[in-house]
Amino acid sequence: MMEIRAAGPDDFDLIWPMLRDVFRAGDTYAVDPRISKAKAHAYWMTQARATYVAETDAGVVGTYYIKTNQPGGGAHICNCGYIVSPVARGQGIAAMLCAHSQDEARRLGYQAMQFNFVLASNDGAVRLWHRLGFETVGTIPDAFAHPQQGLVDAYVMYRRL
Amino acid sequence: MMEIRAAGPDDFDLIWPMLRDVFRAGDTYAVDPRISKAKAHAYWMTQARATYVAETDAGVVGTYYIKTNQPGGGAHICNCGYIVSPVARGQGIAAMLCAHSQDEARRLGYQAMQFNFVLASNDGAVRLWHRLGFETVGTIPDAFAHPQQGLVDAYVMYRRL
Repeated sequence: MMEIRAAGPDDFDLIWPMLRDVFRAGDTYAVDPRISKAKAHAYWMTQARATYVAETDAGVVGTYYIKTNQPGGGAHICNCGYIVSPVARGQGIAAMLCAHSQDEARRLGYQAMQFNFVLASNDGAVRLWHRLGFETVGTIPDAFAHPQQGLVDAYVMYRRL
Repeated sequence: MMEIRAAGPDDFDLIWPMLRDVFRAGDTYAVDPRISKAKAHAYWMTQARATYVAETDAGVVGTYYIKTNQPGGGAHICNCGYIVSPVARGQGIAAMLCAHSQDEARRLGYQAMQFNFVLASNDGAVRLWHRLGFETVGTIPDAFAHPQQGLVDAYVMYRRL
C-alpha cells in the first residue's frame, strides 16, 4: 500500500537523497546540478505552497510540490514538480502523484496546472502527462543542454483543473 | 539624446516609481500589484544578472533587466523585462531597450532570449517583439486575470541571439 501525505519539516532528510540524485544527474530538471541541500530545501519546500511524500512499507519513494506558477494576475495557475525514487520506478507512482496533485490543486483553488519545462528527451514523462490530461501548449527550441544528448527542446504543458 | 547605461544601487529610487505604476496597474506583468519597494528591488535588481536605465535630459525614462531564465541545463537562455515611463511612451524607447538588451545578452554569452509571459492583450508589445525578431513559441490559455478584460492568454516568445 502507498500513502501520499503532506510533508513535514522532518521529511526533508528523506526527500533530499531523491532530489540530490535527480538534480546531480542534470538530465531532467532545470536546476544547478551542484545545488546544495539548503537551496534544494528552499526550492522544494520553502518556496512551495505545499509539499507531499509518497510512502510505502519500504519508506518514502516519491515526492512532489505545488507552487503558484505566476504571482498577481497569473496566480490561478499552479506548477508542480515530481520525483520518484529510482528503486520505485515502473510502479505507476508518478501517475499516482500527479493524480493526487490535481486533486490537491483543485482543493487549493487553482484553475489550471502548468509545467514550464518538460524536456522533449524525457519521453516517459511527456507520454505520462499527455495521458493525465495535459496538452503541449509551447515548445522552446534548444532549451536545455542535456549531458548526453546536447541541446534538446522543452515543452510547456498545461491542463485545466 | 538617450543613453542606456548599467544601473547602480542608487538608481533604484528612480526606477521604483516606474515599476510601481506598472505593477500597481496589474495589467501587463505577472507581479503582485501590491508588491513592496523592497520586493520590487529584489525582483528587478538583486535577482537580475544586470539592470539598465535609459536616461535623457528629462531624467530616467526606462529600465530593463537581464536574468538567466532557467538554471542548470537551461542557463544559456536569458529573460528580460522592460518598462518605459508613461511620459516617454511612443518614442521608440522600448525598441531601443530591447535592441540594447540583445547586444548585452550576447556579450554576456547567452544564446537565446525568452519572454515567459507576454499578455495577448498587450498588442503593442506583441507586435514590437515580433518586429525585433521574436517568434511566439507557446500560448498559455487564460493565463492572466486582466483587471479590465478578464482572463487573457499569455505567449511564450523566443529568439536566438
